[in-house]
Amino acid sequence: MNAMDEPLNLVLFSGTDDKLQAAAVLAAGAAALGKPVNVFLQYWALDAFSKGKIDGDHGLAPEAGAEGRAAVDALTKAGQASWAETLRQAKELGSVDIQACSLSMDLLHLEPEDLDPLVDGTEGVTAFYLNAGEGQVVFI
Amino acid sequence: MNAMDEPLNLVLFSGTDDKLQAAAVLAAGAAALGKPVNVFLQYWALDAFSKGKIDGDHGLAPEAGAEGRAAVDALTKAGQASWAETLRQAKELGSVDIQACSLSMDLLHLEPEDLDPLVDGTEGVTAFYLNAGEGQVVFI
Amino acid sequence: MNAMDEPLNLVLFSGTDDKLQAAAVLAAGAAALGKPVNVFLQYWALDAFSKGKIDGDHGLAPEAGAEGRAAVDALTKAGQASWAETLRQAKELGSVDIQACSLSMDLLHLEPEDLDPLVDGTEGVTAFYLNAGEGQVVFI
Repeated sequence: MNAMDEPLNLVLFSGTDDKLQAAAVLAAGAAALGKPVNVFLQYWALDAFSKGKIDGDHGLAPEAGAEGRAAVDALTKAGQASWAETLRQAKELGSVDIQACSLSMDLLHLEPEDLDPLVDGTEGVTAFYLNAGEGQVVFI
Repeated sequence: MNAMDEPLNLVLFSGTDDKLQAAAVLAAGAAALGKPVNVFLQYWALDAFSKGKIDGDHGLAPEAGAEGRAAVDALTKAGQASWAETLRQAKELGSVDIQACSLSMDLLHLEPEDLDPLVDGTEGVTAFYLNAGEGQVVFI
Repeated sequence: MNAMDEPLNLVLFSGTDDKLQAAAVLAAGAAALGKPVNVFLQYWALDAFSKGKIDGDHGLAPEAGAEGRAAVDALTKAGQASWAETLRQAKELGSVDIQACSLSMDLLHLEPEDLDPLVDGTEGVTAFYLNAGEGQVVFI
């Protein structure tokens, strides 16, 4: 068995732009290498994928501070792709499936039509594990 | 070898109720599928498992904001099981072993009798790795 | 194949001293068991490895609070090794390779000479995956 056949499974929990960007880069890198990627959206990460919010400002991790904020803003001004754009590109590069966690959909009172088209569907944790197979599970 | 025989190993570091709930759902889902689960408690997650605190309010991730706080409170009022209750149910469903990290016990000046009965014992990082075997390690 | 031959791959994102200490303990424990460890530094974790900052105070996770701050300070006064020192020891114990993420180097306007000698080099996400092989990927 080639481990490259097993998917990379990213559980996204955090909703700040820096963590979502780190996650998008990990997803795109794996997709570019031909590895299938499953993304499971929970809590504040799911909230960030809702239609009205995906292109907004979701803040940074607290330790970023003013210096970190300025560094991120400078890259954005210089034309760096947003995490949403990076994920869109990753979907074109390879197999990237993005699912909303059904429990978090209930928590946030979201319906499928409230989510950005980047999100492919909604599933429970059991389906997530079954799709994950023997591949890595990474919580971000 | 069936990967389902290998344990899922959750290193819990964060002590907020939202991350602990996400961890409990991942543990319960794996247990329901017959996968053994090892939980290793460090830092603020360990603190949250101490007797006087386990049923208290441990806050949320900073990005939750007032809207996230309200959503979590509404689910609690609607009768959602707490993360501690979800872990108790996971222990009834399958094999879930919860160990306190001995270094974090020292840090927080905790003795085994200070911990909620959900915690099965105390171990060092070497024992954690040996129990983890070839299974996934997920840091939350 | 012995899973112990596969590396443990730690993606360090967070820059607070408590998470970096947790990561250092996981790295040292794996190294002591003979497992190769790859560390990939992104965002605020990379910032914490820069020369002028590595021995400074990088704060704690928000949920630490005043009580957690006091507990960490007490251990430091009692002579606990810092996370940087723990990583230096891990490098003596076993095979620990620490690489800066090239995208994060750009973000923070860092050059290789700005980093502490603990950092072995700079690489992109593709190289990270190729070095990770079939080993665990843990995001901290």
